[in-house]
Amino acid sequence: MTLPSSIKKFAAVFSRLPSIGPRQALRLAFYLAESERAMLKDIREAAEELAAIKICPQCFFVYDGEGAICGICSNPSRAKDVVAVVEKATDLISLERTDGVKGRYFIIGDLKKTGVLEPEQKKRLAALKEYISRECAGQAEEIILAINPTAYGDLNAAMLKTELEPMTKKITRLGRGIPTGGEIEFADEETLKSALAGRQ
Amino acid sequence: MTLPSSIKKFAAVFSRLPSIGPRQALRLAFYLAESERAMLKDIREAAEELAAIKICPQCFFVYDGEGAICGICSNPSRAKDVVAVVEKATDLISLERTDGVKGRYFIIGDLKKTGVLEPEQKKRLAALKEYISRECAGQAEEIILAINPTAYGDLNAAMLKTELEPMTKKITRLGRGIPTGGEIEFADEETLKSALAGRQ
Repeated sequence: MTLPSSIKKFAAVFSRLPSIGPRQALRLAFYLAESERAMLKDIREAAEELAAIKICPQCFFVYDGEGAICGICSNPSRAKDVVAVVEKATDLISLERTDGVKGRYFIIGDLKKTGVLEPEQKKRLAALKEYISRECAGQAEEIILAINPTAYGDLNAAMLKTELEPMTKKITRLGRGIPTGGEIEFADEETLKSALAGRQ
Repeated sequence: MTLPSSIKKFAAVFSRLPSIGPRQALRLAFYLAESERAMLKDIREAAEELAAIKICPQCFFVYDGEGAICGICSNPSRAKDVVAVVEKATDLISLERTDGVKGRYFIIGDLKKTGVLEPEQKKRLAALKEYISRECAGQAEEIILAINPTAYGDLNAAMLKTELEPMTKKITRLGRGIPTGGEIEFADEETLKSALAGRQ
């Protein structure tokens, strides 16, 4: 049988989204067509607004509005010379919720397992170096490499450290240890070693 | 921190979709904003086209185009007086793929576990009865109750049978037995009983 072309098209577009499969996309199309027609307008508007979002040329986080850089980068009460390097926007959000980063951020993008930067990531790193030259007189106070504490994360953090060490007084990574609420009994050996080494 | 409003709005709309959670919706928003801006146009267009889809007043399946009824209902080579009653559009599609229904369909909507029809479903059932009166001179050849063979499905099928029996020569349900590729050893007792009773 031939499905209505508008159902097929909607399902095809939605099944291209990460983590949405073709069956789920088809069910969504029917759900919206049959009982939530009004949501289609919301989806259309949301997609339209999102298409107008800008990417900060300094930290690569998304932002709305008029300025040439994002709200975090343009906030005068944040230290210019402390930069937390993260892989993705959602990492930035998680860190920002803690209110613990007094400076700015820099999104490098999802790092590969090879420890080699992609062309776009090289461009971003160059932008960070240029930022430090311009805004911090070539020397940042601290760069926090907020990269996941996994084997691949360690590899990438080492690579970034080599790149950035000449441009900062201090270069750190996030502390490792037992997560709050966790139990010593169930912590793995590596985590326990880190927790002992980093005792507070 | 305050997320950009366009990200928040997009995530809010998408997290209202069934089976998409708030975290997944937020990840989608960032994914599209950061690296798949062009897809937002596709989403907008797909939502716009889907909003124009029509629902057939006779079988309640969705359809595009000009006619007053859908392509299945208006197909003259399909028997008017054989009607397969299904709960949802995706059931219709599965049955239609088999090419085994020579007549038409009727979508009653998701049946409740109570065996009682909702107001919208009562209206649809009235439309089916009206269809049989008008198109089949008050008596269909066969009504196939293509309702899931579960305990709740049985309850609902019994209720629909009472409603529709006076208006059809034959009323059937889908055959039960061992699915193709299945093994007798692993079939439950109920299925085996049905498979014996319905041996072909």
